[in-house]
Amino acid sequence: MDAIDVIRAKRDGGALSPEQIDWAVDAYTRGAIAEEQMAALAMAILLNGMSRAEVARWTDAMIRSGERMDWSSLDRPTTDKHSTGGVGDKITLPLAPVVAACGAAVPQLSGRGLGHTGGTLDKLESIPGWRASLSNAEMLDVLRAAGAVVCAAGGGLAPADRKLYALRDVTGTVESIPLIASSIMSKKIAEGTGALVLDVKVGSGAFMKTVENARELAETMVAIGADHGVRTTALLTAMDRPLGAAVGNAVEVAESVEVLAGGGPSDVVELTLTLAREMLAAAGLTAKDPADALKDGSAMDVWRRMITAQGGDPAAPLPSARETHTVTAPSSGVLTGLDAYGVGVAAWRLGAGRARKEDPVSAAAGIICHAKPGDTVTAGAPLLTLHADDASRIPRALEALDGAFEIDGPSSLHPLIIDRVS
Amino acid sequence: MDAIDVIRAKRDGGALSPEQIDWAVDAYTRGAIAEEQMAALAMAILLNGMSRAEVARWTDAMIRSGERMDWSSLDRPTTDKHSTGGVGDKITLPLAPVVAACGAAVPQLSGRGLGHTGGTLDKLESIPGWRASLSNAEMLDVLRAAGAVVCAAGGGLAPADRKLYALRDVTGTVESIPLIASSIMSKKIAEGTGALVLDVKVGSGAFMKTVENARELAETMVAIGADHGVRTTALLTAMDRPLGAAVGNAVEVAESVEVLAGGGPSDVVELTLTLAREMLAAAGLTAKDPADALKDGSAMDVWRRMITAQGGDPAAPLPSARETHTVTAPSSGVLTGLDAYGVGVAAWRLGAGRARKEDPVSAAAGIICHAKPGDTVTAGAPLLTLHADDASRIPRALEALDGAFEIDGPSSLHPLIIDRVS
Repeated sequence: MDAIDVIRAKRDGGALSPEQIDWAVDAYTRGAIAEEQMAALAMAILLNGMSRAEVARWTDAMIRSGERMDWSSLDRPTTDKHSTGGVGDKITLPLAPVVAACGAAVPQLSGRGLGHTGGTLDKLESIPGWRASLSNAEMLDVLRAAGAVVCAAGGGLAPADRKLYALRDVTGTVESIPLIASSIMSKKIAEGTGALVLDVKVGSGAFMKTVENARELAETMVAIGADHGVRTTALLTAMDRPLGAAVGNAVEVAESVEVLAGGGPSDVVELTLTLAREMLAAAGLTAKDPADALKDGSAMDVWRRMITAQGGDPAAPLPSARETHTVTAPSSGVLTGLDAYGVGVAAWRLGAGRARKEDPVSAAAGIICHAKPGDTVTAGAPLLTLHADDASRIPRALEALDGAFEIDGPSSLHPLIIDRVS
Repeated sequence: MDAIDVIRAKRDGGALSPEQIDWAVDAYTRGAIAEEQMAALAMAILLNGMSRAEVARWTDAMIRSGERMDWSSLDRPTTDKHSTGGVGDKITLPLAPVVAACGAAVPQLSGRGLGHTGGTLDKLESIPGWRASLSNAEMLDVLRAAGAVVCAAGGGLAPADRKLYALRDVTGTVESIPLIASSIMSKKIAEGTGALVLDVKVGSGAFMKTVENARELAETMVAIGADHGVRTTALLTAMDRPLGAAVGNAVEVAESVEVLAGGGPSDVVELTLTLAREMLAAAGLTAKDPADALKDGSAMDVWRRMITAQGGDPAAPLPSARETHTVTAPSSGVLTGLDAYGVGVAAWRLGAGRARKEDPVSAAAGIICHAKPGDTVTAGAPLLTLHADDASRIPRALEALDGAFEIDGPSSLHPLIIDRVS
């Protein structure tokens, strides 16, 4: 087999054979296909597409490039959720404890944020002492102790995807539905979950800007899950405005704890419960209503055990920002738009996110939204509060917010839950 | 400017701006755009194309990446030819002396063969003592002494193209008309010729398999020449069967010397004279008929001076093969097909060509065709003679010839000169 033959086959619009896919993914992982060859192949895939069979095989080859985790020693069914990323998307934090409190095991491997979208690990790391890196044995211990674990993926999981993701990031080949779908699903399937719910975000703050693209991605991923024996469903959910009121790291942990305590913003609660019901149904667990796990404190108990088991102190005060700046409503009326992308970029510029994967993030930086679309606001009342470690970051964050909110404009927001794909 | 933005612009079907092209070519030459980024861009160009304005600017940027040679100190007009490559295409060898004998200066920078197509420098290197590498000052000396020089391009000429060509070779991005055209034309324009005739080969043994593709390449190159003030015309010529009787290195030199001596195969003579007339017309020289230069020995005189000036001995015996094998006609009848590609691959496997650019070639290896399409052959009479340094190379060469010739079949060959583009 030869790299140029494989590249040419896809370049000329053909389908790659299973043998070509297996060889290409393995040879790339071993270094026998050079970075520039995989870059050309990735661009050909982006422009000429892949069939369902090709995507399934490509995903399979990436899974086989590393280990596949095994949770069969647990006495609970496993179920997990993956979000394609958004602004204020802290849902994993209340969701994993809620689902564990209802009897499932949640073995979630999460990522860090890049650009304007936040990362679950970055958020949790604002909890003093909490650590993201666990060995497989430690993961199993946390799962047994708490019922849920959220940690970083180890290097042994889908190494082909790790290498390819870094390459796509610098070669303009990220925006390919087959490559996005196979990247997400290879990690989730290798993670060993028995059931999976995908939260595919749609809107300015999400990777998928339109419902059509989001549906295509969701359908592709659901098909891959089915092909690999993982019960998979997907929800398309709104990311045209931020989720909840808090956008950042520590501020999102605080909001998540409010939800676990039975309060919190209604959209965060609704999405948490909707995803929890999907995850539990996929795992065959319908005895307990997840709303009860919030009311009776059992989800909060799981949260405390989970954070403690990973070295964190759930009672410790979270970092707070040295500098704040409040943006007030310029006029009175109904807030009709609060652009997720604008708020996400502003939070990123305040220090909550990173531009390169080596960069650190600020635990305290972020934004609190005092009003959400649909709320009535009064001229001069606080609309957004910006948090930063350093006041010099505020002006550029304010630039990102220019035009990001609208009062008494036309309203055309997505419903929170747009659609379901199964 | 950012590499990813440039890649995305082309990936999404847009035209690159002059500033993007200048920046990309310069940044790649400097190493500021990584190989994998240029590979992705090259694939996007291959699949999404470039406009005439983009190709012209891309070519210009590659020319500006290095030096542009200057022959204004000569008292003769310069004119040159470029062939897109074929099997048995030794035309440069008789052509450069013929044109110089008619009053032009021919400053030809040539290449080496790769795959089944031969390289002019490889052929000339079968002459004992002849050397391909000359400094610019030596080139000028040879041009003054002989009127023609055929040598290797120095590293200072279009370094961007040199780097990009090596990358395209391993990333399945060779077959792009904009990239082929800009590669050829950047070198020829940087070479400093005032006029240029392109011999665009068409058929199984050529890079362009169809007249349509060849015409598109020819038109693209003629337009680039015009944009850069080089009087450029193109001929589309047949490469469905080998050119002449000899395919290899020393055997093609011997055939070229026959042509310079007034003999040789009629197709080689006809193409040499047709191209010579084009080159002379483009240089404004019409006083002498190139056919006379073959008859009166003046072309042979230039040849001898040219070879001698580059260290070669035009009177020395050429290397001959230790092993030969003759293929005979299986039946009597009219030879209706002799596939250029099959013969080219067979000669390559005999040692006349190389698989990787570091490989050496055999001076003596090659094939002599005893009959050409249209000739009547007799069962058992020699059809092809294979020459090799090593008998072990013969069986695989014979495999390449399986089905490469046909007796009394349908005939659908191109005319030698298919079309002219100006």
